[in-house]
Amino acid sequence: MTMNTTTLYQHGTLALLVPGLLTGTLPMRTLLAHGDTGIGTGEGLDGELIILDGKPYQVNSDGKVTVVGDDFTLPFANSHFADYRPLLTVENATREEVHDQVLALTHGANTFFSIMVTGTFTDVKTRAVAKSSRPFKSLAETAENQSIFTRDTVKGTLLGYYSPQIFDGVAVGGYHDHFLDDDHTFGGHLLGCGRVTGEVQVQIFDTLEQHLPVDDTDYQQHDFSQDDIMGDLHQAEG
Amino acid sequence: MTMNTTTLYQHGTLALLVPGLLTGTLPMRTLLAHGDTGIGTGEGLDGELIILDGKPYQVNSDGKVTVVGDDFTLPFANSHFADYRPLLTVENATREEVHDQVLALTHGANTFFSIMVTGTFTDVKTRAVAKSSRPFKSLAETAENQSIFTRDTVKGTLLGYYSPQIFDGVAVGGYHDHFLDDDHTFGGHLLGCGRVTGEVQVQIFDTLEQHLPVDDTDYQQHDFSQDDIMGDLHQAEG
Repeated sequence: MTMNTTTLYQHGTLALLVPGLLTGTLPMRTLLAHGDTGIGTGEGLDGELIILDGKPYQVNSDGKVTVVGDDFTLPFANSHFADYRPLLTVENATREEVHDQVLALTHGANTFFSIMVTGTFTDVKTRAVAKSSRPFKSLAETAENQSIFTRDTVKGTLLGYYSPQIFDGVAVGGYHDHFLDDDHTFGGHLLGCGRVTGEVQVQIFDTLEQHLPVDDTDYQQHDFSQDDIMGDLHQAEG
Repeated sequence: MTMNTTTLYQHGTLALLVPGLLTGTLPMRTLLAHGDTGIGTGEGLDGELIILDGKPYQVNSDGKVTVVGDDFTLPFANSHFADYRPLLTVENATREEVHDQVLALTHGANTFFSIMVTGTFTDVKTRAVAKSSRPFKSLAETAENQSIFTRDTVKGTLLGYYSPQIFDGVAVGGYHDHFLDDDHTFGGHLLGCGRVTGEVQVQIFDTLEQHLPVDDTDYQQHDFSQDDIMGDLHQAEG
């Protein structure tokens, strides 16, 4: 486990969440061994995780932000060692404008990369799913029990990962953004925002290190051919 | 680059071959640094590669088998460090029976793994594509120029990789088998065989190390949204 800044680590797949394989199959200590920066969700879709500077913050469905311990487990997560380079400064830009400009400047559409946007955001809307317990239900049913949080104006950090479309289902095809405010009192999976003024940084990866929960019996024995993976995912993401 | 026997390395994607991104973007020396066992194809779909015990054999469209050098480049390839365990002995089994038995015994349907089958094969049918030159055409057009080779009875090695269906397009979903005979005079991408009598070994991976040719301008700038990736692949594989 060398500190490699061109590799994005991923545990699990987006697809395994669809039928409800929500067991936490990776401890946070292992995720942190692969990076000081990342996103994920806990067992049973227990909130939204964002790792900044090696600290794993969880936003739960009450909206509370806490730092989780090394034994916290995750069914699906990404991490990498931060080595961002400044790309552009934006003023009153929409999220879509930032996304599009980054793609245009990096020619990164077929590449895994991360964006980090720091600054002031308006009309921020995030969500965090409530942890469900066993037996786990499908992603669609589990995600129904979520909370939505909003802030009119907030200083914070958007941490996003971009995955090429051919990896849709393995990862989240396109951008997947989480958010945490500077005071560590507000955040989650970013559903949308109005405008952002601040700094946009990027880090490009040449490698996806895709780790699978091969020792988890539920995962091993699940018959994915019976699931409408892509259909359900696009409904959940929509 | 540690010698990790639970990681499967992949350079490129199956998908990038579809529109004809056939530039050799990885030298053999780098592929061999990630494994002593593997499969792949050369620039312009230059034959079928099979790496056994650290030696990279190429079967070209004339049917000739040669060992290629470190500077030989590949658009798409897999490698790993061999650490197989014996799984079963088969007698007059079809390839489908071997494939199915391995899946049943390993519960490996959602897992990347490799199979190595050594023994005597009947009615073996392989193919090798002829190298095309720039400007490269699509996979379908390029693969039209291929040779098919057959042997009634031959001793040899089947080296295959299995990838979970959600990775179809990234890799070859299901099994992808190459073949080399013991005399190193016959081989290629395995289209089919009659019966096999011999030993079946498996090696299970928990990680796919997916490397992309992010510095290749043609890859960077290609608009995959205009390609019918899955449609074309299933036609080519059929």
